[in-house]
Amino acid sequence: MGRMEPGEEPMVLRYCDGELTAAPDELAPEEPLEIRVRGRPVSVTMRTPGHDAELAAGFLLTEGIISSQEDVLRIEPCGRNEDGNVLNVVLAAEVPVDFEKLTRHVFASSSCGLCGKATIESVRAAFPRVESDVTVDAETLVRLPEVMRRAQSAFDRTGGVHAAALFDADGKLVVLREDVGRHNAVDKVLGFALVNGLLPLDHHVLLVSGRSSFEIMQKALAGRVPVLAAVSAPSSLAVEFARESGQTLIGFLRAGRMNVYSHPGRIRFPSAAMAGARRNGEVADPR
Amino acid sequence: MGRMEPGEEPMVLRYCDGELTAAPDELAPEEPLEIRVRGRPVSVTMRTPGHDAELAAGFLLTEGIISSQEDVLRIEPCGRNEDGNVLNVVLAAEVPVDFEKLTRHVFASSSCGLCGKATIESVRAAFPRVESDVTVDAETLVRLPEVMRRAQSAFDRTGGVHAAALFDADGKLVVLREDVGRHNAVDKVLGFALVNGLLPLDHHVLLVSGRSSFEIMQKALAGRVPVLAAVSAPSSLAVEFARESGQTLIGFLRAGRMNVYSHPGRIRFPSAAMAGARRNGEVADPR
Repeated sequence: MGRMEPGEEPMVLRYCDGELTAAPDELAPEEPLEIRVRGRPVSVTMRTPGHDAELAAGFLLTEGIISSQEDVLRIEPCGRNEDGNVLNVVLAAEVPVDFEKLTRHVFASSSCGLCGKATIESVRAAFPRVESDVTVDAETLVRLPEVMRRAQSAFDRTGGVHAAALFDADGKLVVLREDVGRHNAVDKVLGFALVNGLLPLDHHVLLVSGRSSFEIMQKALAGRVPVLAAVSAPSSLAVEFARESGQTLIGFLRAGRMNVYSHPGRIRFPSAAMAGARRNGEVADPR
Repeated sequence: MGRMEPGEEPMVLRYCDGELTAAPDELAPEEPLEIRVRGRPVSVTMRTPGHDAELAAGFLLTEGIISSQEDVLRIEPCGRNEDGNVLNVVLAAEVPVDFEKLTRHVFASSSCGLCGKATIESVRAAFPRVESDVTVDAETLVRLPEVMRRAQSAFDRTGGVHAAALFDADGKLVVLREDVGRHNAVDKVLGFALVNGLLPLDHHVLLVSGRSSFEIMQKALAGRVPVLAAVSAPSSLAVEFARESGQTLIGFLRAGRMNVYSHPGRIRFPSAAMAGARRNGEVADPR
């Protein structure tokens, strides 16, 4: 087995049936949007940029603040904010807004769980980088989804729950939790670890059944988890966060394959895969 | 085509390849959990009941309030609350808690979007029941996922985004939006409707790519959408909400099949399917 130490991190490393290749990869864009009403921040939500005025209008509609076209005079980007991630909604003067209720009770989440960091700036700095020299075999990793699936009790019946599973570096299942909310499943796993004195989880792998988002990464970081794997795709911000926070992020983990988006050094690929990738110049020589 | 008016609502109506059957159905349980710290509500999240103490501990861990086993003295159900949906976390005296920050900035969401209704009691009553006599052909409905998929631009590339699509009662696509957050996709669709003066959407069908949860139903209700369809499973609370709010809720909508969880009267099934179901006593005679 070789240990991967790429000189320059590629967009994504694809490991498939023992072969390792580097490739650019399309990610679902994810960025925070701060919605302001009459200049006051009322919500921060992680979203795919685009149609942001509609998102703001729909949010205020579904929160019961507005109910018709006429309630909105205009929706405009905040002048000082150049990335377009802050929108101000100018409502007609007669629309009453209970800011107390809106800001305390209403923080929108979509599927982010990040709801309520009241400023975008505060999003990043909650926890320090994870430092861990743990390594995990690629062939161990690709078997984890099947282990998780077998351990899931509710999934086959309802098809409607998410799972999060914690494994040690040898691929042994420590705990599995399920929930209708992805983030709850992760919180339950981390809470199990805390309650049972297992923190920090710096020699563990956390596997989630769905996608990985910014906030899943943030939760994993709070538990000091160095390797986060997801059965489905990561968002762009999840990848960005993982790179900055020192986390190894794996997506599309399935029997025989995975994509590695950040810090691949913690994964031990079979030597044949490493040799092939090195021959093609896709990874640097191991140090 | 017959019009279904069951005397007593079955757990779920299964429509598959032209056949209609009634059956009990297992749903992923979903209920609100209010987390209190030192007696003060800090979060309401929709979750699958079970391992609630771990959920509360994991939530406080990932929000940076606690970091070790010793920080938590005990986690106990709130005495007055008999359904176990309110937990109080008793922290060690020396653990500092910035309630201002926690309650204003931290409302947890999981995938609910409901984060931040500060009391469970306030969850239900936001919008009145939807009243609409619109009807939609079953055979029109089962074709909608394919229409949505063809209209999705990002899905094939990333595999990581959710979609919401609004259709008229004839199955014509009005608007489609995608987002990393399921709830954002719905907000964008509803915001589009508001901005373009299409509200109320009481003769429309809203289709979402993933599961339907309580909060998706709530958002649809805010737009007065009478028929909500999802490609995947609903949660238990989504079904409960739909029944109370007058919404027709469809799950597992795919080519040739669907499950109907509430108010099936708005769906026109083929007469053969109705006749078969009536013969088996699974639906009442149409009025």
